[in-house]
Amino acid sequence: MDNFLLEVPVGVSGRHVHLSKEHLNILFGNDYELTPIKDLGQPGQYAAKETVTIIGPKGILEKVRIIGPTRSASQVELSKTDCFKVGVNPPVRDSGVHEGSPGCILVGPEGVVKLEKGVIIASRHIHMLPEDAEKYGLKDKDMVKVKVDNERGLVFENVLVRVSTTSGLEFHIDTDEANACLLKTNDSVKVLR
Amino acid sequence: MDNFLLEVPVGVSGRHVHLSKEHLNILFGNDYELTPIKDLGQPGQYAAKETVTIIGPKGILEKVRIIGPTRSASQVELSKTDCFKVGVNPPVRDSGVHEGSPGCILVGPEGVVKLEKGVIIASRHIHMLPEDAEKYGLKDKDMVKVKVDNERGLVFENVLVRVSTTSGLEFHIDTDEANACLLKTNDSVKVLR
Repeated sequence: MDNFLLEVPVGVSGRHVHLSKEHLNILFGNDYELTPIKDLGQPGQYAAKETVTIIGPKGILEKVRIIGPTRSASQVELSKTDCFKVGVNPPVRDSGVHEGSPGCILVGPEGVVKLEKGVIIASRHIHMLPEDAEKYGLKDKDMVKVKVDNERGLVFENVLVRVSTTSGLEFHIDTDEANACLLKTNDSVKVLR
Repeated sequence: MDNFLLEVPVGVSGRHVHLSKEHLNILFGNDYELTPIKDLGQPGQYAAKETVTIIGPKGILEKVRIIGPTRSASQVELSKTDCFKVGVNPPVRDSGVHEGSPGCILVGPEGVVKLEKGVIIASRHIHMLPEDAEKYGLKDKDMVKVKVDNERGLVFENVLVRVSTTSGLEFHIDTDEANACLLKTNDSVKVLR
């Protein structure tokens, strides 16, 4: 039997790219700085004005948004729908886990990067502050269910809880997951356990 | 408490178009006959060699497959992902229910059709023969749940059962629903009630 714990707002992630400082320099020129145009749900993260083109064995995705700031390793997050178009078959992974993932070609205005790995389909997860986790009897790495109530209603199973002091309460899913059940950013869903 | 009833094979529908005889004639020429290239899961239905271009307010989808034979009214079945690209906002509907649905432009090699309505996002459903329905205590228009067991596992709620003598056992979903939980045609899912 599943018990209702709390409601959380949804954050839908479209396809995007995180770049290392080295790759940013190759794609946009030496000492290039990203231009933030929109703050994201997680503190310090922003959508940049800059975009790249992604090239795979079967297709191209143009104007793919860069999320800043730069990271230690570049990462490309695609939906499964995108993957069919580009011709890559990445695993479903937590951010930053690149072992065994495929690569792709990234093209910017000043250069090209052949990424050897780092293309993933992002694992859905719930960000939560320690005080929220404690209030509802949850801890970091717990698995919960998330229920969506609408005409395309469903229950996501195997949803990872990530507790940290830097992340506001938010259920992160990709565009395939959102479109399958007609969710939009800032909609509300129910956490069950 | 949900009880396991039976396993059913999955049929994933990509975007496609059903044409009326009148629209087929406009798009491909008078007395044109579709060329079947692949039988589909449901008896008598086939993928045709012919494709059309779909044009909406925000974008274009090229080479959209026609499913034959012709029907009394044309119908365009898109995923929500497709809808964002084309710029239409159709309802989730059972096949053939077009009241209040948007239209689009269809382009073929011999002509153009301005469809006034008939663009839908297809409701997921399970096709079942009467003998299967009776065996598992189900009847036409029952609602059941469908469980997908994998790393992106979930439970689809509000799944319509359609019982008819012409339809083999199959769970029909679109590409968004399939990609959200990594399902492919001929995978197996569990029906719960």
